[in-house]
Amino acid sequence: MLYQETREEVLKFAVKCLEHGLIHGTAGNVSMRVPGEEAVVITPSGIPYDTLKPEDLPVVSLWGEVIDGDLKPSSETPMHTAIFRARANVNGVVHTHSMYATVMSIMQKEIPAMVPPSSAFAPVPCAPFQLPGSKELAETVVATLGEDHLACTMQNHGQITCAPTLAMAYKGAETVEECAQIAYLAYQAGSMQGLPEDARVELRRRALKGQAV
Amino acid sequence: MLYQETREEVLKFAVKCLEHGLIHGTAGNVSMRVPGEEAVVITPSGIPYDTLKPEDLPVVSLWGEVIDGDLKPSSETPMHTAIFRARANVNGVVHTHSMYATVMSIMQKEIPAMVPPSSAFAPVPCAPFQLPGSKELAETVVATLGEDHLACTMQNHGQITCAPTLAMAYKGAETVEECAQIAYLAYQAGSMQGLPEDARVELRRRALKGQAV
Amino acid sequence: MLYQETREEVLKFAVKCLEHGLIHGTAGNVSMRVPGEEAVVITPSGIPYDTLKPEDLPVVSLWGEVIDGDLKPSSETPMHTAIFRARANVNGVVHTHSMYATVMSIMQKEIPAMVPPSSAFAPVPCAPFQLPGSKELAETVVATLGEDHLACTMQNHGQITCAPTLAMAYKGAETVEECAQIAYLAYQAGSMQGLPEDARVELRRRALKGQAV
Amino acid sequence: MLYQETREEVLKFAVKCLEHGLIHGTAGNVSMRVPGEEAVVITPSGIPYDTLKPEDLPVVSLWGEVIDGDLKPSSETPMHTAIFRARANVNGVVHTHSMYATVMSIMQKEIPAMVPPSSAFAPVPCAPFQLPGSKELAETVVATLGEDHLACTMQNHGQITCAPTLAMAYKGAETVEECAQIAYLAYQAGSMQGLPEDARVELRRRALKGQAV
Repeated sequence: MLYQETREEVLKFAVKCLEHGLIHGTAGNVSMRVPGEEAVVITPSGIPYDTLKPEDLPVVSLWGEVIDGDLKPSSETPMHTAIFRARANVNGVVHTHSMYATVMSIMQKEIPAMVPPSSAFAPVPCAPFQLPGSKELAETVVATLGEDHLACTMQNHGQITCAPTLAMAYKGAETVEECAQIAYLAYQAGSMQGLPEDARVELRRRALKGQAV
Repeated sequence: MLYQETREEVLKFAVKCLEHGLIHGTAGNVSMRVPGEEAVVITPSGIPYDTLKPEDLPVVSLWGEVIDGDLKPSSETPMHTAIFRARANVNGVVHTHSMYATVMSIMQKEIPAMVPPSSAFAPVPCAPFQLPGSKELAETVVATLGEDHLACTMQNHGQITCAPTLAMAYKGAETVEECAQIAYLAYQAGSMQGLPEDARVELRRRALKGQAV
Repeated sequence: MLYQETREEVLKFAVKCLEHGLIHGTAGNVSMRVPGEEAVVITPSGIPYDTLKPEDLPVVSLWGEVIDGDLKPSSETPMHTAIFRARANVNGVVHTHSMYATVMSIMQKEIPAMVPPSSAFAPVPCAPFQLPGSKELAETVVATLGEDHLACTMQNHGQITCAPTLAMAYKGAETVEECAQIAYLAYQAGSMQGLPEDARVELRRRALKGQAV
Repeated sequence: MLYQETREEVLKFAVKCLEHGLIHGTAGNVSMRVPGEEAVVITPSGIPYDTLKPEDLPVVSLWGEVIDGDLKPSSETPMHTAIFRARANVNGVVHTHSMYATVMSIMQKEIPAMVPPSSAFAPVPCAPFQLPGSKELAETVVATLGEDHLACTMQNHGQITCAPTLAMAYKGAETVEECAQIAYLAYQAGSMQGLPEDARVELRRRALKGQAV
């Protein structure tokens, strides 16, 4: 049963977000495309992850209708499903309010690729402010991600990552926050100097092939 | 027995403050109105929370006289009871010395609502300095909170939150500290730009109705 | 047997320094006067605290000669014993390399009493640089502490606290670090404004009487 | 069997790097010369340390060819082996992406010896950027370390330490990160003032003899 396996993956990475301090309380959400189906498993609205069992997680269509499960899906479901509709090769999405990514979004600064591990996800553009949960936010984020970006920040709100696998989207959330902290500290010292561009392109190529960077 | 249940709630959230780094040692205090009575349970003065049983917690009147319990109530009892007297819909109060809220109080800066989860508690005004434990501090804090604010900072001292439930006041203490850190970091980068005002008003409305923001 | 009880106290607070991040590895030291004797228990040189039993701790005279125990006393023993000789009412000393106290020492800034709990220990003066372990460092620290200070920083080195009890000296080490972080952050924002002086004097009076501040 | 003991040491310190936050995920690597042989044990590429047994660790020659083990050695093996070839008295190497060392590398600032424990490893020079895993990076790091340095940072990348023992190289990684944070905070306050030079030389002499500093 594919729903069950996908639910286990989503809950596993939602709990990892909590444990690594990327998500506090219920302020964030995690989703994954059910393999081979037009369906998405997403964390529910307002329920602490550590009280959930995998079978509690809602399954929704690519347009956000509930297909399975009793709990209300995350209020940010429109943003997640819009990404899955727009980007056929994206299978996992992670949205968090991590500290430095949020601060960089308020500064409305793109986060450069400061170090090799960030090269697949950075530069991270900033989507202009829209109301949480709104259709406008979903559209703005999809437009900011475009065809290639795997991450963006959302002004006065947080960050979102998407990738071919949920594991990679989770890794991206960690990496974007680490890169945002490096960028902030370097910015304050007058040196927000990213990787040389040719190095970034080469490292991104390697990262997308799964090689060590 | 209502005292016992209220004492359990107060101790639970006092311990949460410790575990989440909002309170160090005994530097902070937590209180809750006993449902339907003119009485308040408050943490005792100078006793580490992890050595307390619920029945140890003092019960005081709305004017601070001890009604039940052998331990001395917190030295900040006048401030807690003054809030309960002034604000009939407040049932929980949390006071902590959390780092960034304290720093913002020293800078005498109002903390703007930087991100959606802070919209119910921010903007957070700053109450001018008064001696800890004094009647003047209680009056100044009540005046600063006014009729609507759910949080204020106290200059060179810390932060205080109040809400219809103790759970919400606790959540507020976490949120105010997180928002204070975001505000401080953005201020240092020259960008302490809060949520657009119409968004803040809408998100506050949702938060007070218990909806996800 | 007084040595044993004193050794247990010293080891207990040395381990607390580790657990609270005030001491990393073996970079710090803790000592206590043996009640009623001209003798001091001090942590040994270069041995991780979590491998020690109380009976391993060296006992030295007020002039630093080993009285009991096989391990070499801390290389900073001259500084500890000089304080015990100079200040009859001091019974506990804690020296750590905590981050923000060290940074403030490099800035050669006195740490003001930024918040009520720091009023017994602040303002914290800065002793000029001397070589670790030297007689000159011991003399400089004693001179900087003078008759009344319970804490000072040591330039490019760390902080030291002394108090009537070891428990209070430990509490001071925590409080000085917290106050140093507040002072640093406020300084960076152009607002290193301490408590009003009359409040500080009153709060120090209360703290030294053991009252809540 | 020397391979086994060396593998146990390497895994022990790799796990310590994880536990102390110097390495996140698999972003870093640890190696040790097999005593008396022209062989090096190094952590494998892309495998989380907490899933490894000592016997899984690759053994490579001083020129990087795999001698024993089924896993692929770290992509930074050329840098590690280049150091072992160039410095006969180096037996342990630790490379991490720790936060403040990385930020200082982006600022292209040498990290001064800010406090006594850093005197053996600082000043820490910065090697100019080269692609991770490249022969050019290996050469640049060896040139930057020269004959005497026990640590350098690598621009937009991280830090590397080397020492007569792996335990000391690990200690160096901790110390360099702590010193980098002190230096960054002091730099931001306009006071990146290291130890007096004569004190640094004396303390380095002591540290290399294994004395307390």
